[in-house]
Amino acid sequence: MKIILAGSAGFCFGVKRAAKLALDSSEKFHQICSLGPLIHSPQLVKKLEEKGVKVVERVEDLPEGAVIVRSHGLTAEEFARLSERDLTIVDATCPFVKKAQDYASQLSSQGYAVILVGEAEHPEVQGIVSYVAGSEVYVVADHEQAEKLPSRSKLGVIAQTTQSFKNLEQIVAVCLRKGKEVRVFNTICDATTVRQTEARDIARKVDLMLIIGGFNSANTSRLAKICQDIQPHSFHIETADQIHPEWFADVDSVGITAGASTPRWIIDQVLDRVQEMTK
Amino acid sequence: MKIILAGSAGFCFGVKRAAKLALDSSEKFHQICSLGPLIHSPQLVKKLEEKGVKVVERVEDLPEGAVIVRSHGLTAEEFARLSERDLTIVDATCPFVKKAQDYASQLSSQGYAVILVGEAEHPEVQGIVSYVAGSEVYVVADHEQAEKLPSRSKLGVIAQTTQSFKNLEQIVAVCLRKGKEVRVFNTICDATTVRQTEARDIARKVDLMLIIGGFNSANTSRLAKICQDIQPHSFHIETADQIHPEWFADVDSVGITAGASTPRWIIDQVLDRVQEMTK
Repeated sequence: MKIILAGSAGFCFGVKRAAKLALDSSEKFHQICSLGPLIHSPQLVKKLEEKGVKVVERVEDLPEGAVIVRSHGLTAEEFARLSERDLTIVDATCPFVKKAQDYASQLSSQGYAVILVGEAEHPEVQGIVSYVAGSEVYVVADHEQAEKLPSRSKLGVIAQTTQSFKNLEQIVAVCLRKGKEVRVFNTICDATTVRQTEARDIARKVDLMLIIGGFNSANTSRLAKICQDIQPHSFHIETADQIHPEWFADVDSVGITAGASTPRWIIDQVLDRVQEMTK
Repeated sequence: MKIILAGSAGFCFGVKRAAKLALDSSEKFHQICSLGPLIHSPQLVKKLEEKGVKVVERVEDLPEGAVIVRSHGLTAEEFARLSERDLTIVDATCPFVKKAQDYASQLSSQGYAVILVGEAEHPEVQGIVSYVAGSEVYVVADHEQAEKLPSRSKLGVIAQTTQSFKNLEQIVAVCLRKGKEVRVFNTICDATTVRQTEARDIARKVDLMLIIGGFNSANTSRLAKICQDIQPHSFHIETADQIHPEWFADVDSVGITAGASTPRWIIDQVLDRVQEMTK
């Protein structure tokens, strides 16, 4: 049995940084909460809870002490309310997400109608949207939604950092027909592109593909979709115990990748389980 | 025999304006020259010559009197040299071309590497390029050439006004992989898009397609290419006497369109000839 593990599987720069900030803070502060789950990995969130980092959903419900801002960032309004409280703020917002927030603010102050390529419900997207002040903003998930955009003279396009490049490309093509000027900041994180490209390459070569990551993780779900389109025998799993031995019947090669929020120890557990099952 | 004449065939706004300016000036000024051919229609240029508008290729060779600047515009350097001469300047530069020149200047002053979608040898393109000062500029004809562009943090994209939208779209897609910020001014003239779209629609419906316009006219050649891709039985002609009767064997329907620089009287002559031949 041949097993190919993607070199790009797992934690990206922003998640690694957030996890480190959270772990360091758990030792440093007596009382520390995370505003929303730190990243979309229920397993890491649980581990942090064991170290005393409690998840609180609303600013109002935060106790005294320190608060950690999750990697996806907050809305401008949440950040303002947070700053009003007498709390120590540990900002683990991914620097690439912060950049997208800055572009949103810059484009809106320069009179562009802002088009954000992403999923409307995702906290990162809601955060970025909140930095558009004084101009229109539209969140579009795909080129079909983009077709419904109104025509505007100046369109500014940014993307959720974990979007696929193909999706951005298709939406920009539609925007070119909607506005005389189209200004695009490609805010897709390189790590996402590298991970998706590597996943595609591996999926083409193997009989079975495993994609590891939180079921609530948008980037992992997108990664699974990319693999499934190439190799229908692809499975999105969160942990090693979700692997079924019958998947390996008539399988000579297995590819493994993982989303940006998947901790290394979970990848290792999956790797061990696959090796055991296919011995 | 069914004949479909495109409503968008012939003179666009800029050419109509240039032709009118030239005809009016031929009556107003005792001595008037055109710097380069006014538009890419040898027939109209000949007609203007009969009215006293002589074509002169270089600023140095212009006699005293008035000069008309052709619809494609001049390079910044030519314009400066022209302004130094004691001549009356009638500026027939198409306002849409002027706008593209302005964007080139604006993008370059803001530090963008400028990508101009167009044909390097075309006078309009050479004019626009000359307004880039202090930053890099690259002329790309298609997405294959765009693939060879270097990566730059800020790319500004503009287009020759008669380019096809599809070409702009494909080149922008490549640029998105070359720069973090891509700012596109869609300088393609609406008339071009409308003419190309209508030509496509007609070419799909007919057995034979005639595309009328100067063999030196880039927009007519592009129109012919668009039609030939859909209906191989498409012919680019300059005048009615280039039509061969044998083209109409087994033909039940004929489509006719014409480039932006094709005078109405030539279109009418073609229409008459086709009707005669297919009676």
